[in-house]
Amino acid sequence: MIIGKVIGTVVASQKERELIGLKFLAVAPIDLLTGEVQGGGVIAADAVGAGVGEVVLYATGSSARQTQITQNRPVDATIMAIVDTFEVGGEVLYLKD
Amino acid sequence: MIIGKVIGTVVASQKERELIGLKFLAVAPIDLLTGEVQGGGVIAADAVGAGVGEVVLYATGSSARQTQITQNRPVDATIMAIVDTFEVGGEVLYLKD
Amino acid sequence: MIIGKVIGTVVASQKERELIGLKFLAVAPIDLLTGEVQGGGVIAADAVGAGVGEVVLYATGSSARQTQITQNRPVDATIMAIVDTFEVGGEVLYLKD
Amino acid sequence: MIIGKVIGTVVASQKERELIGLKFLAVAPIDLLTGEVQGGGVIAADAVGAGVGEVVLYATGSSARQTQITQNRPVDATIMAIVDTFEVGGEVLYLKD
Amino acid sequence: MIIGKVIGTVVASQKERELIGLKFLAVAPIDLLTGEVQGGGVIAADAVGAGVGEVVLYATGSSARQTQITQNRPVDATIMAIVDTFEVGGEVLYLKD
Repeated sequence: MIIGKVIGTVVASQKERELIGLKFLAVAPIDLLTGEVQGGGVIAADAVGAGVGEVVLYATGSSARQTQITQNRPVDATIMAIVDTFEVGGEVLYLKD
Repeated sequence: MIIGKVIGTVVASQKERELIGLKFLAVAPIDLLTGEVQGGGVIAADAVGAGVGEVVLYATGSSARQTQITQNRPVDATIMAIVDTFEVGGEVLYLKD
Repeated sequence: MIIGKVIGTVVASQKERELIGLKFLAVAPIDLLTGEVQGGGVIAADAVGAGVGEVVLYATGSSARQTQITQNRPVDATIMAIVDTFEVGGEVLYLKD
Repeated sequence: MIIGKVIGTVVASQKERELIGLKFLAVAPIDLLTGEVQGGGVIAADAVGAGVGEVVLYATGSSARQTQITQNRPVDATIMAIVDTFEVGGEVLYLKD
Repeated sequence: MIIGKVIGTVVASQKERELIGLKFLAVAPIDLLTGEVQGGGVIAADAVGAGVGEVVLYATGSSARQTQITQNRPVDATIMAIVDTFEVGGEVLYLKD
C-alpha cells in the first residue's frame, strides 16, 4: 500500500452506475524518507470514513476491490486504513492528533 | 482512479474484434496539487459519454473491465465519471460549467 | 491503453512454451501532448498484424490476455489496434498513410 | 519482485476489517546497480517475520495476495523473503549478518 | 514484456513457502532506443534457465504467474524468454553470441 495524505474531494454526478454511493478523495503520497507530501497521487474510494487532512493507507489495482464496500465495483484505488503513527529509522514522521 | 482532462480522440479501424464499438479518448492526468494538465496520459475507453475538454475520472488495470460496456474486453483504461467539482485544500481547482 | 510507435522486433528461440507462435514487437510510447516518440516502451505481443513504423494501441496487465491470440498465455502487453488518426486539441498529430 | 530495505513501521487502528492482524512495514527499494536505498517505496504486509533494517523481497499487485497470510485480503504489497545475499556483476552488494 | 539484462542473483533462505525452488535473478531494463542498461529493474523468477549476462524478456503482474513453474505462486515478475536478436530501426542493438 501507499501512505498518503487526504488533500481534497471529487464530486461527479454523471458516472458508471456501480460507483454510486462511494466517496472519492484526492490522496497525495508521502515520501517514506522525509514524511513530506509528494506529487503523483490518486482519487481513491473511501472504505474507512477518512477525511481531508488525515494520513491514510491506500491500495491500488485489483486489491482495491477486495473490500465489502468496493467488491465487484470498477475501483482501482481504495483507502484501507487511517494511520495513527508512522515511524522511520526510530523517528516519528507522523502522529495522529 | 486518476483525474484527467479529455484532450483528444483516436480512431482505429483495424483492431482486436472485442474493441469494436468502443470510443477511445486521449486523457491527460491533472496534477492534484496545482490542477494543471500533465504528461503521461492514456487512451481510455469511454463508459459515460465523455467529450473532449471535460474533466473525468478513469480507472486502469483489471478495474477498467468492471463496467457493463467493457467487461471481458481487452481494455486497461476506462473513463468512469465526469467530474463536477474538484477541491484541494478548500480551494476549487475545477468546476464544471 | 497506450498509443505508441512500433520501432523494432525481438526474436527469442528459447522461451516459455506458451509464447511459441506469438510475434513480439518493440513499441515506444507517444507523448499525448506533442505526438513525439518517448522512452520507456515495452515488448508487446501482436494481436492485429502490426508492422514496424505503424502507430498502435497496446494494453498492459491482465487486459493483455483478453484476446483470442493471447488468452491464458503469460503476456503482459499486447498490441490491440492499428491507429488511423490521432487528434489532440483539434490538431491531427498522426494520420496513417 | 523488488528488493528493498525495511526502514520503518506503520500503525493504524481504524482500518478495513480484513487487514486486522497484519503487520505493515515501510520498505524502500534498493537500486540494483549500486545497492543504495532509493525513494518511492511502499507499505507492505509482512508474510515472513521481517524486521526494520533487513533487506527483503516484496511482491506487488495481485501476487501480493497469493500467500496464506494475505489471501483474499485487500493487500497490494507483501514481503515474501528475507535476503541473505545480493550479488551484481560478481560483487556482493549485500550480505546478511 | 520488458527487455532486460540479467545482472545479478539473490539468495533468500527465509521465505514464503511457495517460493521454494524458484531461482531469482536481478534484471535491469534495456532502453529501447539505445540498447543501454537502465536503472529501475526487478528481481524476477526464472522460467527458462537464464543466466547472468543474458538478455531476456520478463513479464510482470498477474501474467508472471501464467507459467508452469510459477502458477499459483506469489511471483510478480518472471523471465519468459532468452533473446537472440533485438533490432530497432533496422539496426541490431543486441545479438546473442
